Amino acid sequence: MHEQKALENNRKSGLEPHEVLKNLSGLEIFQKMMAGELLMPPFAETLEYTLLEVEEGRVVFGGQPKLAFCNPLGTIHGGYLATLLDSAMACAVHTTLEAGKGCTSVEFKINFARPVFEATGHLQTEGKIINVGRQIATAEGKVTDENGKLYAHGTTTLMIYDLK
Amino acid sequence: MHEQKALENNRKSGLEPHEVLKNLSGLEIFQKMMAGELLMPPFAETLEYTLLEVEEGRVVFGGQPKLAFCNPLGTIHGGYLATLLDSAMACAVHTTLEAGKGCTSVEFKINFARPVFEATGHLQTEGKIINVGRQIATAEGKVTDENGKLYAHGTTTLMIYDLK
Amino acid sequence: MHEQKALENNRKSGLEPHEVLKNLSGLEIFQKMMAGELLMPPFAETLEYTLLEVEEGRVVFGGQPKLAFCNPLGTIHGGYLATLLDSAMACAVHTTLEAGKGCTSVEFKINFARPVFEATGHLQTEGKIINVGRQIATAEGKVTDENGKLYAHGTTTLMIYDLK
Amino acid sequence: MHEQKALENNRKSGLEPHEVLKNLSGLEIFQKMMAGELLMPPFAETLEYTLLEVEEGRVVFGGQPKLAFCNPLGTIHGGYLATLLDSAMACAVHTTLEAGKGCTSVEFKINFARPVFEATGHLQTEGKIINVGRQIATAEGKVTDENGKLYAHGTTTLMIYDLK
Repeated sequence: MHEQKALENNRKSGLEPHEVLKNLSGLEIFQKMMAGELLMPPFAETLEYTLLEVEEGRVVFGGQPKLAFCNPLGTIHGGYLATLLDSAMACAVHTTLEAGKGCTSVEFKINFARPVFEATGHLQTEGKIINVGRQIATAEGKVTDENGKLYAHGTTTLMIYDLK
Repeated sequence: MHEQKALENNRKSGLEPHEVLKNLSGLEIFQKMMAGELLMPPFAETLEYTLLEVEEGRVVFGGQPKLAFCNPLGTIHGGYLATLLDSAMACAVHTTLEAGKGCTSVEFKINFARPVFEATGHLQTEGKIINVGRQIATAEGKVTDENGKLYAHGTTTLMIYDLK
Repeated sequence: MHEQKALENNRKSGLEPHEVLKNLSGLEIFQKMMAGELLMPPFAETLEYTLLEVEEGRVVFGGQPKLAFCNPLGTIHGGYLATLLDSAMACAVHTTLEAGKGCTSVEFKINFARPVFEATGHLQTEGKIINVGRQIATAEGKVTDENGKLYAHGTTTLMIYDLK
Repeated sequence: MHEQKALENNRKSGLEPHEVLKNLSGLEIFQKMMAGELLMPPFAETLEYTLLEVEEGRVVFGGQPKLAFCNPLGTIHGGYLATLLDSAMACAVHTTLEAGKGCTSVEFKINFARPVFEATGHLQTEGKIINVGRQIATAEGKVTDENGKLYAHGTTTLMIYDLK
């Protein structure tokens, strides 16, 4: 199964040396993460989200809401959804960058359409580029359940820079 | 020491029954969390952040950046900072609500002023109300290090509703 | 010509009585504005923008950048683009509302992709709904030139209420 | 009277040559606009707003709501308030820049706290810097009436560049 495979490939996390990353295009980095050839970032292990799809200008992350991600009233914390969206939107921009370039979030903005519960089940978070300039890029993202129901959406602004 | 005490009081997490929460004012809820009389939410345990100060219209959360919260390039993930800000801004509004009222984030927007590393050390996240109406409230927040240096800031819009 | 006709129909502006508006659905209000049967709002006359397309959940406004809308460096002011986007996004939500309901912007957020000059020529601003709930709705918008080049984009949050 | 004087000084608008602007610091530019020694931008004439206070990192614009700025329901259009906020927030950052540097809005985000009517009377819009980096700066702004009541507030992200 697609996601099961992704989960296995993605299960190891850590930091790859900058020397490795700066010689790969953005698309190559995330394709290699998908294939288990590069480590997933530590925060992906902490919050248990995985990379499900990667193409130029678009990525999809998957995640499973659980009690450990809840706020006081038993709904999933907005910060968990923000993490999925920030990851997906920033990676979508990164897939368009040539080797030697990186990008960092300058800001993001998120709307919550309805509460997420543990029972909501598996979430997909799609990030897509809106506009990629030389220095500044924007992207949008949305979090949906397996029926395509919308839970959160957002946009982000990134700055593109030279990886040292 | 103030924070050590807060950490001990805050160390247990879980969900309190709605019947307990709906009979307390917002200020009472967070004062009792500070005092260890109410459980901290699960996500606070997962991301190891604590409640350091509570007053009407203002709260401060503390957190310690660590490798487990990093993105691929070794900086702290924006989603971790978003979690601190969303928590602090929403709680600041909640402290102004009478018993029987709750609030939920409609949207938030965050700017990142500079990267956070593990070596940045302990972070304080202050949330303060801007405007609290009958149905809609706004708040602002900022993440600073122990020298007051700014790392991220944001604003949020919340909807106020009746707890059932 | 489509736009010429729209301009003629839209050329009169003023305020219609609430009693007239509250007996029309949102879609009817904007269809009647397009047809010249209801007055365009005064700000549309001041900034010379017109309603070009209306359907349920989507509207398009047209506008012509000119010197009078410029900031000190000779580019079109962000506030002019914000006006087009706020109008288009809010109207897109309004077209989904039944008679007796109105909506008001709680917040909006806009990104500028590239500068607009007088020479950029005619702009189209499309607003489309993202999610319409019972009390809160969100929409997105984009400003493009006649070749489809993107100049600005944004999202908005609106509150839906009963017209009195 | 302070404002009367400002209005007189500000009443002429137009575009100053880039050669003039690039040899002045940001603070000098806005002080000279206040003093009537540089033209106000055309959009300030169109929407009749004036520069009331300028210091390093902070400016105040004044404006008078009127029928010509209204939306269909007779409240002042969000785009008018966005214009005041965008102007004030961007100028606040510009006052911190040395000669030869300019700044442009990458994005802004605005919340509306309560409706503005013609009868609301004179509005003040204060912009203040939050963080000014080498390439990216942020600022915040608020619109209040003569009693200090809050009507709208926002934040912005600007990019700093070399004026050519």
